[in-house]
Amino acid sequence: MNVYPYLEAVREKRPLVHHLTNWVTIYDCAQIVKSFGASPVMAHAAEEAGDMTSLASALVLNIGTLTSDFVESMKIAARAANKKRIPVVLDVCGAGATRYRDKKSLEIIDAARIDIIKGNSSEIARIAGEDVKTRGVDATEVEADLREIASSLAKKRDCIVVLTGQVDVVVDADSVYIVQNGDEMMSHVVGTCCMATSVIGTFVGASPGSPIEAAAAGLSCFEIAAELAVKKCGGPASFKERLFDSVFSLKKEEVVSMQKVLP
Amino acid sequence: MNVYPYLEAVREKRPLVHHLTNWVTIYDCAQIVKSFGASPVMAHAAEEAGDMTSLASALVLNIGTLTSDFVESMKIAARAANKKRIPVVLDVCGAGATRYRDKKSLEIIDAARIDIIKGNSSEIARIAGEDVKTRGVDATEVEADLREIASSLAKKRDCIVVLTGQVDVVVDADSVYIVQNGDEMMSHVVGTCCMATSVIGTFVGASPGSPIEAAAAGLSCFEIAAELAVKKCGGPASFKERLFDSVFSLKKEEVVSMQKVLP
Amino acid sequence: MNVYPYLEAVREKRPLVHHLTNWVTIYDCAQIVKSFGASPVMAHAAEEAGDMTSLASALVLNIGTLTSDFVESMKIAARAANKKRIPVVLDVCGAGATRYRDKKSLEIIDAARIDIIKGNSSEIARIAGEDVKTRGVDATEVEADLREIASSLAKKRDCIVVLTGQVDVVVDADSVYIVQNGDEMMSHVVGTCCMATSVIGTFVGASPGSPIEAAAAGLSCFEIAAELAVKKCGGPASFKERLFDSVFSLKKEEVVSMQKVLP
Repeated sequence: MNVYPYLEAVREKRPLVHHLTNWVTIYDCAQIVKSFGASPVMAHAAEEAGDMTSLASALVLNIGTLTSDFVESMKIAARAANKKRIPVVLDVCGAGATRYRDKKSLEIIDAARIDIIKGNSSEIARIAGEDVKTRGVDATEVEADLREIASSLAKKRDCIVVLTGQVDVVVDADSVYIVQNGDEMMSHVVGTCCMATSVIGTFVGASPGSPIEAAAAGLSCFEIAAELAVKKCGGPASFKERLFDSVFSLKKEEVVSMQKVLP
Repeated sequence: MNVYPYLEAVREKRPLVHHLTNWVTIYDCAQIVKSFGASPVMAHAAEEAGDMTSLASALVLNIGTLTSDFVESMKIAARAANKKRIPVVLDVCGAGATRYRDKKSLEIIDAARIDIIKGNSSEIARIAGEDVKTRGVDATEVEADLREIASSLAKKRDCIVVLTGQVDVVVDADSVYIVQNGDEMMSHVVGTCCMATSVIGTFVGASPGSPIEAAAAGLSCFEIAAELAVKKCGGPASFKERLFDSVFSLKKEEVVSMQKVLP
Repeated sequence: MNVYPYLEAVREKRPLVHHLTNWVTIYDCAQIVKSFGASPVMAHAAEEAGDMTSLASALVLNIGTLTSDFVESMKIAARAANKKRIPVVLDVCGAGATRYRDKKSLEIIDAARIDIIKGNSSEIARIAGEDVKTRGVDATEVEADLREIASSLAKKRDCIVVLTGQVDVVVDADSVYIVQNGDEMMSHVVGTCCMATSVIGTFVGASPGSPIEAAAAGLSCFEIAAELAVKKCGGPASFKERLFDSVFSLKKEEVVSMQKVLP
C-alpha cells in the first residue's frame, strides 16, 4: 500500500476529531491531531458528547483515567457516532490492570459499534479474553501469538484491531498490515500510545478509502516523524517537541522513502 | 496607547490569577501566567472556588471542557469576584458548537457580572445572538461585520469584548482597540487562544488603569513574544517552547518597537 | 550519604508509581517518573483506586485540584497502600490557601498512614498548625524556624516531612537531611514542586534501604538534573524540556560530583 495519499487526505479534509480521552495526555492528543493539519475537540459532558460527536469525522475514546460518569458519556458519544456512521476508535488503555477497567472496556464495546480497538499486547490480550496481567499502563510480555490474538478479536467483534509495540499489527477479519516504523525512544515518552490512537482517528476520519489502510498509514506517518525527530533529540522531552514539529512538516518524499508497511 | 507600562505592572504586582479552565490547556494557561511573572492558581471545587477567588487579583473562566458541576463552581467563583470587585474574564471557548455550550455560556453571563467576554469570531457571534455554526473549537468564518458584532455585545452586556483572530478587536461601549501583533503559527498550536485569555486576566488583574487598555496590552505583549518565538522555531512545538521563553524575557525595547495597537 | 545507589535502584527496579494528582501538572508528574526509568500510572476512580495501588511500589497523592470525590478516592488508595505496606507520599499543595484545603488535607492524614508529607514552607507550616496564609499555591515567607516546624510535624505524625524551598529539609523523628541542589529557574516553571513529589515517590518505591535517605536522594538527583538543564536553556520552557532530558541521561559521575546533601 501507499501511505502518502492518506496523509494528503488528512491535510486536505482537515477532519474534526472528537475525543473523550484521559487527563494525562489530553493535550498531546489534541496537539498531534492539530500538527497533522486536522482539528481536535474534547467535550465530555453527557449533555453535549453526542451533539459534538455528530459534528465530527471521527470519535476517539481512551479509558486511561476513566470514571463511571465518563464511561457513560463515552457510550452516548459512540452511539451518536454509530447513528451517523462516524468511525469510532477505542484505546483500551490499561485494560488488564484492574477488574474495573476490564469491565468498563467491555461495557463500551457492548454498548455501541467500535470500529477500531487499539492497545498494546497485554491490553489487547485481556480484551480478547486471554489471561494476562497488565502492569499499570505499560505493556507486559504476552506468551501467546500476538497476531493470532488480534485476529481472533477482530473476527469476534467484527472490527479492526490495532496492536502497537515494537512492530504494530493492524488486522481485520480478512487482512493483516504490519507497520515497522518508529523508534525505541517513543517508549520513554508518556503519551505516544495515546497520540497514536488520535492519529488513527484522524486518518480514518479523513480517509476516502479503506479504514484499515488508513489506520496503518496513520501509524506509519506518526512513526516516520518519530524516526526523523529522534535524530535531533537529546532525550525524551526534546524528542517529543521534535516529533510534533516533524509531523507538522512531514514531506511526501520522506513518507514515500521511509514507509515500512507490510503487506 | 503605550503597552509597556502594563507589562511592568504585571511584573511588579505579580497578581494571583485564579482559573476555572479546561483540562486540555490547563498547564499552558498556568505556565503563561507564570512566565509573565505572575502567579496562577486553579481550584474548581465548589467548596473553595469562592474562597480562592477572593485571594486573587483576577478570575479567568474558560468553558472548553465544561460540565454542569464545573459551571456551578464558575458561578460561585464569579459571584465571589463580583463581591470584591475582582475582574472576571470569560472565554466562551467552543460556543456555537452545541446548544448545551451556548446555554451554559449564557447562564454564566447571566449569573454574575462578567467584565470581559473573549472568543474567536464564531464564538462571539453566537454569544451576541448571531446565527453562526462553530466547528468544534476552531473559528468559522462569519459573514457579518465582526467589529460591529463585538461592539453590540459589549453594549448589550456592558462589558469589554475581545474578539481574537488574525487581528484582535478589543471593544467596550465607547472605544475600540485593534491589536495587530502575532503570527500565523499561533493557529497551529493548541491552547494559544486559552493562553491569550489567561494573559488578559493577568494584565487586567495587575492594571492600575484602564482595563480595556490592559487587555489590549496583554494581547500585544503575548503576540510580540510569538513574533520573536517564530523566528527561532522549527514547527508548532518548538514554537510553543520559545513562546514561553520569549514571554519570560520580553524586553522593554522589544515591546516599544514592536507593539501594533490601534488607536 | 551517597545519592547514586538510590538512582541505580530506581533504574533497576523500575517501580510502578501510582498517582492521584492534580489536573494541571499531571502530565509532568508522569513524564518525570518515566524519565527516571520508572513507570507512572494515574487512576482515580473510586472503584479501581485501591486495586491499582495494590500493584504499585509507591502511591503519590497531590491535592492541587482536589474535589471531595477525589479525596475519597485518595483515602481508598491510601488505605490499600497501608494494607500492603506500600509507601504513601502526600503533597499538601496549596494548603493554607482555603479552609477547605486545610480540612481535606487533615482528613487524608487522619484516614490513613501517610509516610511522607511534602510541601513548601507555608503549606507545611499550616499542616503543622502554625498560623500562616498561603497565597495560591506559591510559598509565602514563614517567620518561624522552618526546620523546627518540619521536625515537630514529623514527630507528631510519626512520618517523614519534606519541606522544599531554596534549600530542602527532609526530616523524621530522629534525623535531618538538607538538600542544597537545584536552581532558581525551577521556581519559574509550573509543576516542579509536584514533580519533586513524584520523584520522592519513585525513589522511596524503589529503595532497598532508608526511606528518608531515598527521599533526599530523589530530590538531589532531580535538582542536579535541573542544574545541568539550566546551563543550556533560554527560559522556563526550554529549561523544563532539558530537565526531562537531563534526568533521562543522568550519569553516575554527575551525581557523585554534584550531590549536595547534608549530613
